[in-house]
Amino acid sequence: MTDLIKKLREKTNAGIVACQKALKESSGDVDKAVEILRKQGVALASKKVGRAAKEGKVESYIHLGGKIGVLVEVNCESDFVARNDDFKTFVKDMAMQVAAFNPMYVKKEDVPEEAVKKETEIIKAQLSGKPAEAINKIIDGKLAKFYEDACLLEQPFIKDSSMKVRDILTSMVAKIGENILIRRFVRFQVGEDLK
Amino acid sequence: MTDLIKKLREKTNAGIVACQKALKESSGDVDKAVEILRKQGVALASKKVGRAAKEGKVESYIHLGGKIGVLVEVNCESDFVARNDDFKTFVKDMAMQVAAFNPMYVKKEDVPEEAVKKETEIIKAQLSGKPAEAINKIIDGKLAKFYEDACLLEQPFIKDSSMKVRDILTSMVAKIGENILIRRFVRFQVGEDLK
Repeated sequence: MTDLIKKLREKTNAGIVACQKALKESSGDVDKAVEILRKQGVALASKKVGRAAKEGKVESYIHLGGKIGVLVEVNCESDFVARNDDFKTFVKDMAMQVAAFNPMYVKKEDVPEEAVKKETEIIKAQLSGKPAEAINKIIDGKLAKFYEDACLLEQPFIKDSSMKVRDILTSMVAKIGENILIRRFVRFQVGEDLK
Repeated sequence: MTDLIKKLREKTNAGIVACQKALKESSGDVDKAVEILRKQGVALASKKVGRAAKEGKVESYIHLGGKIGVLVEVNCESDFVARNDDFKTFVKDMAMQVAAFNPMYVKKEDVPEEAVKKETEIIKAQLSGKPAEAINKIIDGKLAKFYEDACLLEQPFIKDSSMKVRDILTSMVAKIGENILIRRFVRFQVGEDLK
C-alpha cells in the first residue's frame, strides 16, 4: 500500500490521506485513483476560483548560464501558503516550464482575438481544396494544438508530460485549499528581436 | 600608491594600469584621477556606442523572499565578455538596482512624450502664481529630478550614490572595451496593480 501511495502522490501531488482514500475507493488501482483525485481536485478547485489571490511569490529561472531568463508571479490567498514548500516548488516549476516551453500567454482567454483569427487563416490556407466539413474539424484540432503551444496552462507539464500544467495547478489548489493563480510571466532571451 | 590604486579602482571600476596612469597624471590626487578616468571612459565609451551588441546575459534578482522580482538583459558584443566576471557583476548590480529603485525606463529617450507632458503639467499646477521665468527654471529642475527617479541610467548607483548608473556603465565600457547596453528589464511586485 505504501508503494501505491507513493506512486499516486508522485502522479497527483495530492496529500497522503487523500491518496489513501482514493486508493481505497479504487481498490488499489492507481490509474483510477488518479481519476478520482483529479475529479476531487477539479471540484475543490472550482470552489476556490474567483477568491481574491493577492499574496504569492515571484520566482526566476536562469537558463544556459544567462542566455534565457524567466520571471513569473504566482498568487495565492495567504502569505502562509506563499511560504509553503509545495507552493514554492510549484512556482519554481512554472518558471522552468516557461524557460523550456516558451509560452506566449498564461491561458486561452489571454490570446487576443486577432491572433486566433490569423492562426485560423493560416490553417485554412494550408487546407484549401478539402471539403468544408473536414476543414472545420481539422481547424478545431489545429487550434487546440495552437493553444497547447501558446498557453502555459495548456502545455504538457515539464516534469510529467502526461499531465497539463492546468492539471498540476488544479491538484495544487486541491492540495493547498486556496485559490492559486499564475498571474504573469516574462521570458528574456539574449539578443532576440523585440516585438 | 597601492592604497590609492585600490581606492581609485573602487571608485571607478577601472583597470589597474589605467588607475596607475591616472594617478601619475593627477600626482596622486584620487579625485582628480577619478575625473581623468571618467573623461577617458566617456571618450572610449562614445567610440563603442552604436556597435552591435547582441550577446550578453539575462540576470534575475529576487528580493524579500519573493515579494519582488527583477529580470534584466544586458548586452555586449562578444560571448567572451558575457562570461567576464566584471560584466556579470555589473548585470547583477543592475538587477539589484531595479529591485531597489524601481525605475520605469532604461534611459531618458525611452520616456514617452505624454509622460513628460503630464509631469510638466503637474509641476506647473503646483507653481501657479509665480513669475514665468522662475517657473521655467523650476520646471527644468523638477524634470531633471523626474528623469532621475524614472530612468535607470539617471539614478544614483545602489552601491555608490555619488555616481549615476550611467557613470558605472561608462566606466564598464571603458574597462571592458566593448559596447554595453542595458536592453530591458521588468520588475514584478506580488499583488501590485497592473497597468
